[in-house]
Amino acid sequence: MKVVHTDRHRGHAPTVETYLGLPEPANEVPQRAEIIAAALTADDGFELVEPTSHGEAPILAVHDAGLLRFLAEAWPAAESQRLKRDFLVADTYPVRAMFEGMSDSMATARPEPIDAGGRAGWWGLDSGNPITAGTYDASRAAVDVALTTVDLVLGGETAAYGLCRPPGHHAARAMAGGYCFFNNAAVAAEAIVAATGERVAILDVDVHHGNGTQQIFWRRGDVFYASLHVDPRQRYPFFLGHSDETGEGAGAGENLNLPLPEGTGDEAYLAAIDRALEAIAARPGSIVVVSLGFDTYELDPIGGLSVTTPAYHEIGRRVAALGRRLVILQEGGYHRPSLGENARAWLRGAVGRPFEPGSWASGDTIARR
Amino acid sequence: MKVVHTDRHRGHAPTVETYLGLPEPANEVPQRAEIIAAALTADDGFELVEPTSHGEAPILAVHDAGLLRFLAEAWPAAESQRLKRDFLVADTYPVRAMFEGMSDSMATARPEPIDAGGRAGWWGLDSGNPITAGTYDASRAAVDVALTTVDLVLGGETAAYGLCRPPGHHAARAMAGGYCFFNNAAVAAEAIVAATGERVAILDVDVHHGNGTQQIFWRRGDVFYASLHVDPRQRYPFFLGHSDETGEGAGAGENLNLPLPEGTGDEAYLAAIDRALEAIAARPGSIVVVSLGFDTYELDPIGGLSVTTPAYHEIGRRVAALGRRLVILQEGGYHRPSLGENARAWLRGAVGRPFEPGSWASGDTIARR
Repeated sequence: MKVVHTDRHRGHAPTVETYLGLPEPANEVPQRAEIIAAALTADDGFELVEPTSHGEAPILAVHDAGLLRFLAEAWPAAESQRLKRDFLVADTYPVRAMFEGMSDSMATARPEPIDAGGRAGWWGLDSGNPITAGTYDASRAAVDVALTTVDLVLGGETAAYGLCRPPGHHAARAMAGGYCFFNNAAVAAEAIVAATGERVAILDVDVHHGNGTQQIFWRRGDVFYASLHVDPRQRYPFFLGHSDETGEGAGAGENLNLPLPEGTGDEAYLAAIDRALEAIAARPGSIVVVSLGFDTYELDPIGGLSVTTPAYHEIGRRVAALGRRLVILQEGGYHRPSLGENARAWLRGAVGRPFEPGSWASGDTIARR
Repeated sequence: MKVVHTDRHRGHAPTVETYLGLPEPANEVPQRAEIIAAALTADDGFELVEPTSHGEAPILAVHDAGLLRFLAEAWPAAESQRLKRDFLVADTYPVRAMFEGMSDSMATARPEPIDAGGRAGWWGLDSGNPITAGTYDASRAAVDVALTTVDLVLGGETAAYGLCRPPGHHAARAMAGGYCFFNNAAVAAEAIVAATGERVAILDVDVHHGNGTQQIFWRRGDVFYASLHVDPRQRYPFFLGHSDETGEGAGAGENLNLPLPEGTGDEAYLAAIDRALEAIAARPGSIVVVSLGFDTYELDPIGGLSVTTPAYHEIGRRVAALGRRLVILQEGGYHRPSLGENARAWLRGAVGRPFEPGSWASGDTIARR
């Protein structure tokens, strides 16, 4: 399988994220992608290739131009304001309740703040999403990784894997959040629709609900979104991801959320995978975009589910059994020692190869939240 | 002048607030009210009285019952989740962009999170608003201070001052934020409307836009809201407070925002006061609620304007010259050394007494943000 990867992700190297008001060591760090790249390099079933540049247009097909401009300008603006920290994180957010009673037209017309922190809130969702000097370039590179993976599949590959970092599925049309800046999977799905005219399915197996992907395609009938995730009442992103969110307008019935209780293990998880795959199989289309997270893993520090490495191999196998071409894009996964093995397990499953578990790559262990 | 005050505010004693992702020493601390109370006690023009209990009903007249329940339960819930910190602050917020495209009926029907941090975000606006063990009781006491001040004025006092702490004007119907939990001024205005059947004006001279008060009365024709504040594009609360926000529906024309550029001094500030007072004078009613902040002060650490102590005496004088009875409620003001003198200056102006500046109360000086 071809693996699209670039070292440009390393430019996004936050040292901390702000969790419940206090800085903690960042979870979404360059080592994540380095461990996966090293594990796949060492496995002769995979071939690493560099992404090609795709420009702004595919991003602007799903994102507000203001979000792109903000991300391009945020770090220089923060520096010129001398914020006395090596990252930009907001503290104040334009929540729905703030605007209650105001007409949507007036609320939407409120001007963007000038202050760097206020502006970060304007385009943000949470304080766990630090912007650093290299965030914009890394985020642009992650989109190029996703689009190059699409190119490979449109060019004839049965399946290809894009080692996107930073991840993307929490980013909405006009909002970054949850370690995500541009929605790599949404950009990829939109590009496939544009290139093929076919309907596309997105299967999101990150442990968190992909609220950004859901939002972008909420009223669209041409992109089906199915997500398995931990119950959002218990875990991030808290406010969306419930089973009654099935899409509206032209997208009615084209959104499938399968929230799972904290602690869910392999058996119940695989049963939910089958439900999502049945829903995909019932719809036309020849390509599936997979938002692949390993934060469902039993030892993930922020996940909350209990999926094991052998199950990842089985999930990859079942997804491939759809008989559709696969654009597999990396999302989360924060138990660094196991990331390489879990990626190998999943991706070997997706190409019908056996998986013999190796030992974990050396790496620090991480306490669960 | 009667001053309504209780020591119960001391129960809300946060040590830190999270500013742009990092904890900083809290600005909204018990010492603020203690300094003002001491200065007024030492001035024989003022008489301190205790508030009386008014129960939940006046709060529920302007706030969502869920907000009250959350504030009552938040700290015990945080403790039972063992968050390893002595305050509860959210990191993830239900921003408008997250729900873009979703019908209002569906967005409004999303279930409240169970997780203590997710729930704090659900009812919150920013990470500068820590909830501690005594926050709920202090917030309830602040409402009682405001309502007892209303009682005094309805009972015949020309003017009375409620030393509310925590402040209130950022709290919306279903949202806490900006050091505020219940909107003391909105509860007071609503109580006056209910008791008198008259129209009421709120004059908000805190340095920050009172987004919560604006929201609560946005579509109401019986409460006029006028606010002078620093340009929200530059300062908290960032997303509301612009001059084109004039109210909608029955409230059309009943909201007056006068944003002022950073650095605005006495002359321009007094000119804006006159505009607000003219608008109030043009409307019927016999009682004005004043949301009084001293964070317009030239040395305030988070304010951004440049008003001086003599100007506070003049503002109090001009507000009293309206010839209406005044329910004066404390909001912000974070340069602690000057708070006592600034309160004396304003309140003596409001009762037509001269003001001879004393020396600042001893206290730490605070660097500007």
